[in-house]
Amino acid sequence: MNLVLLCPEDLVAPDRALLTGRRLAHVREVHRATVGDDLAVGLLGGKMGRGRLLRLDDEALELTLSLDQAPPPKLPLTLVIAVPRPKVLNRVVAASASLGVARIILVNAWKVEKAYWSSPRMAPENLRQQMILGLEQAKDTVLPELRLARLFRPFVEDELPVLVAQGTGLVAHPASGESLPRILVAPVTLAIGPEGGWIEAEIQSLLRAGMRPLDLGPRILRTETALAALVGRLAF
Amino acid sequence: MNLVLLCPEDLVAPDRALLTGRRLAHVREVHRATVGDDLAVGLLGGKMGRGRLLRLDDEALELTLSLDQAPPPKLPLTLVIAVPRPKVLNRVVAASASLGVARIILVNAWKVEKAYWSSPRMAPENLRQQMILGLEQAKDTVLPELRLARLFRPFVEDELPVLVAQGTGLVAHPASGESLPRILVAPVTLAIGPEGGWIEAEIQSLLRAGMRPLDLGPRILRTETALAALVGRLAF
Repeated sequence: MNLVLLCPEDLVAPDRALLTGRRLAHVREVHRATVGDDLAVGLLGGKMGRGRLLRLDDEALELTLSLDQAPPPKLPLTLVIAVPRPKVLNRVVAASASLGVARIILVNAWKVEKAYWSSPRMAPENLRQQMILGLEQAKDTVLPELRLARLFRPFVEDELPVLVAQGTGLVAHPASGESLPRILVAPVTLAIGPEGGWIEAEIQSLLRAGMRPLDLGPRILRTETALAALVGRLAF
Repeated sequence: MNLVLLCPEDLVAPDRALLTGRRLAHVREVHRATVGDDLAVGLLGGKMGRGRLLRLDDEALELTLSLDQAPPPKLPLTLVIAVPRPKVLNRVVAASASLGVARIILVNAWKVEKAYWSSPRMAPENLRQQMILGLEQAKDTVLPELRLARLFRPFVEDELPVLVAQGTGLVAHPASGESLPRILVAPVTLAIGPEGGWIEAEIQSLLRAGMRPLDLGPRILRTETALAALVGRLAF
């Protein structure tokens, strides 16, 4: 937690926050802070700055806030990700948020097991919590926009072309022989397949939507690794 | 495990392998393979190809091998990584191996806690096992060269300049305002700091060694995310 992220309900006055639970424990046990210390803080969806510790005990911590910095700008990047298995989902969502991705769309695909969709990890509260962990890691306050596209075809046929028309669309697909454009300037929509890859019909649908195929080389990367590498390629 | 990686001691004949333990369990429970199936296999440090299942039971599996493919070429990339905390170490080493990094050098730094060096995870057998997991993930057979540089100064002053002189040296360092060269052509040496970053004296030493500073933007990424992003930026 490189930034203590505050929700509106944490504020007991416009410049005072009172925290309990996970964040209290982290500040005590990991930061090992003491009264008088300054912590990096941010208001969810708002500004960042410093919070001075007024109180810190078993029950709660209290901060006076001075928030004067804008959060870092989001990357003009939409990630379209086939729902990964629950074990991987949390890391992927947190990593995407930490990388500054503006929008995450979790989409169905042939090789996405149906059970993935009913995992408790797909609950909006969990996904939001993972994004918050990513923001706390990266020092950002703005949640990515997160959407679930449970039906592949309507999403790809109706919604994706609108996204692609705003800039470039790229789909990660092995052996397509295509390399990447060099810099993220116009908005990019990037699709990352499930474990085992997209099936041919999905690829064709994606291409018809205006997505360009992209070759990541002969190695198969974990979802979180591949997405970090792609974002790095586009954005750094 | 996208590739069943074989060690020389698994071979009972030049074209026959007998496996037990972790790989047996994985083939039975995850691949759910049956006798007659073909599996992607590779010989550690050697060729890749197919293995046909001759036998599969509670005790062992047996494969006939036909290995005719070269493994993917390594990236001409050396990663110099300050030892991460043990919890993160395994993922970083496995991810580096999966990304095709040619050489990993785990180095000391000011903010590397001494205890990290005596963690059981730093044992050569564990590090090797993590690289093997990365190769199995990525479909590769060649272990990265792995070195430990426990003394920062001699490494940076004596060894690093030799590496850098072979190509380009880059060090991840926030707010340096530098962006990356676009493509990995000549060998690159990339240094990634510990949690909390390099201290100024280390940065100065690194710069003196010929490393160029590099700005990754305002976000703080997890080690494994940052390295994937950097590799992606350089190599894709």
